[in-house]
Amino acid sequence: MPMPQVPFDDRGLAYGDGVFETVLLRAGVPVLWDYHYARLLLGCQRLNIPLPSREQLVATWQSPPNAELEILKLILTRGSGGRGYATPDNSQPRLLSRRTPFVVNADRWHEGVNIRICQLRLGHQPLLAGIKHLNRLENVLARQEWNDPAIAEGLLGDADGWLVEATSMNVFWQQAGALFTPPLSQCGVAGTLRAALLDHGVVQEAAIALTAIHQVDRLWVANSVQGVWPVNKLLSETGVVLQSWNPAGHDRLQVVGHELLGYSPTSR
Amino acid sequence: MPMPQVPFDDRGLAYGDGVFETVLLRAGVPVLWDYHYARLLLGCQRLNIPLPSREQLVATWQSPPNAELEILKLILTRGSGGRGYATPDNSQPRLLSRRTPFVVNADRWHEGVNIRICQLRLGHQPLLAGIKHLNRLENVLARQEWNDPAIAEGLLGDADGWLVEATSMNVFWQQAGALFTPPLSQCGVAGTLRAALLDHGVVQEAAIALTAIHQVDRLWVANSVQGVWPVNKLLSETGVVLQSWNPAGHDRLQVVGHELLGYSPTSR
Repeated sequence: MPMPQVPFDDRGLAYGDGVFETVLLRAGVPVLWDYHYARLLLGCQRLNIPLPSREQLVATWQSPPNAELEILKLILTRGSGGRGYATPDNSQPRLLSRRTPFVVNADRWHEGVNIRICQLRLGHQPLLAGIKHLNRLENVLARQEWNDPAIAEGLLGDADGWLVEATSMNVFWQQAGALFTPPLSQCGVAGTLRAALLDHGVVQEAAIALTAIHQVDRLWVANSVQGVWPVNKLLSETGVVLQSWNPAGHDRLQVVGHELLGYSPTSR
Repeated sequence: MPMPQVPFDDRGLAYGDGVFETVLLRAGVPVLWDYHYARLLLGCQRLNIPLPSREQLVATWQSPPNAELEILKLILTRGSGGRGYATPDNSQPRLLSRRTPFVVNADRWHEGVNIRICQLRLGHQPLLAGIKHLNRLENVLARQEWNDPAIAEGLLGDADGWLVEATSMNVFWQQAGALFTPPLSQCGVAGTLRAALLDHGVVQEAAIALTAIHQVDRLWVANSVQGVWPVNKLLSETGVVLQSWNPAGHDRLQVVGHELLGYSPTSR
C-alpha cells in the first residue's frame, strides 16, 4: 500500500494541528482500543476537531494482518486550511493511517533497562496536557540529548521540577509497597496503558520531584506497545548513577500491564 | 504549479519537527530576507536540522512573479523518519514552498484595529522560544477564542502573566515617548519586522504585565506581511473596553516599519 500523503496546506503539517495514536494490533485486532478511542475523543474535543466516525476508524485495521503483532499509527489533522491560525469554517478533517509489522523486545521485560534524566524541562500548557497532539518538539529535543543505545529512555521533569514522563513512555514507581505515576494536568501524554492501570486500581497518581526520584524503591517505564520495562539504573545528566534497582522478583505492574496488552506473563 | 505534498512519515507532520517562514515578496523579491534567513538558521540550530543551501532557498522565488505582492511560505522539515522521537541518522531535510498572490489591507494602517486579550497563556519553553517552529497549537487555540471579524487580533500573555505577542503578530507599545516590545526568551515568535525595528533602534525590549497594559500610551500589532496596525480598542475577556487609543498623528513605528517593508508611507 503506498504511503499516504498530505498536501502543503494541511494544518497538521503547518501547525501540528491534529492528534495521533500508536496502537498495538494483535492478529489484526487493536489492543486497548477503548482507551485509544477515549484519548482521540479527548484530543478532538480540546482542539475542536470533529472526530471521525467509528466506521472510518475501524476501516484502518480491516485488512488482513501481515504479522502477529503490528503497529497501527493514526494521524488525524484538522485538514487543509488557508494561511493563518484561524480555524477554517469548511475544513474537512484528514484521517491517515499506516500499519507496520512489529517485534516486541521481550529482553527488556526480563533484563530491565538503563535510563537517564533529561535536561529539557517540559513547559506547562494545561490545554494540551494529556492528549497526544502533533506538537511534539519537546519530546524530539529531549530524545536528542543522548544517542547511547545502552540508554533506553529519558525521564522528563516539568518547569517546576516535577517528574512527568519519559520521552515516549509513562513512568511508574513503587514506594512503601504502593505503585504511583505522575499526574499529567500541566504537560505530558496520558498513555493508554497508564490509563488502564489507573482504572484497574494498580497504580495511583502522585507527584514526585525529580530531585526525590532516588528515594523510590523501584521504577518502571511503560507504554501500550513496548509493555513494561523495569529500570535497572537511572543515570543523572553527568552520567553518574543515582541509584540502581533489581528488577527480579514479583512485579505486579508488569504482570498486570502485560495481561492488559495480551503479552505472556513474564517468567523469571 | 501543483501543491507540494509530504508523506505520512515526514516528521514535520508527525511531530511538528521543522520550521517555517512566511515571506512578503514584492515584484518577486523577498522583503527582509536577511531576517527571515537569520531566523531560519536559528531554528535549524535549535532543532539540529541542516539548513538548506542558499541556492535551494533562492530557487523558491526564482520564477516570475504572479502579482506585485505575494506571500512565499517555506516549510522545512527534518524529513522522513521511522516511528519514535529519535532523530534518524540518515534523514534528509525536506524544503517545501508555495507562493500565493497577496493584497495588503491598507485600511487597517489608517483606521487601526480592535483587538482582545486571549485567555490562553503561553507555556514557557526557552529551547523553542523565538523560532518559528511547526508546533503552533497554542496559537491555533488562542485564535479559536473569537470569531468576531471586527476583532483583528488577540494578545497573548505567558503563564506568569507577562505580555508576549499577538496570535500571529508581535506587539509594540509606547510609554513616556519610547517604543517597546516584549522580550521573547520563554515563548513567542520573534518576528522579522520586530527584529528589524530593534536593530534600527526604533524599539527596545521591555517586560510588561498583561494587567498593566491599560497604562500604556499607545499600542500596535505588526508583522512583516501585514505591516503595522495601530490599536484603537483593546477588549478584555468579558468584552469590556479597557482602553482606546487614537491612532491619528505622527506614528514613528508605522513610518519606519513600512519603510522597512517597502510599503508607501501612510498619509493622514
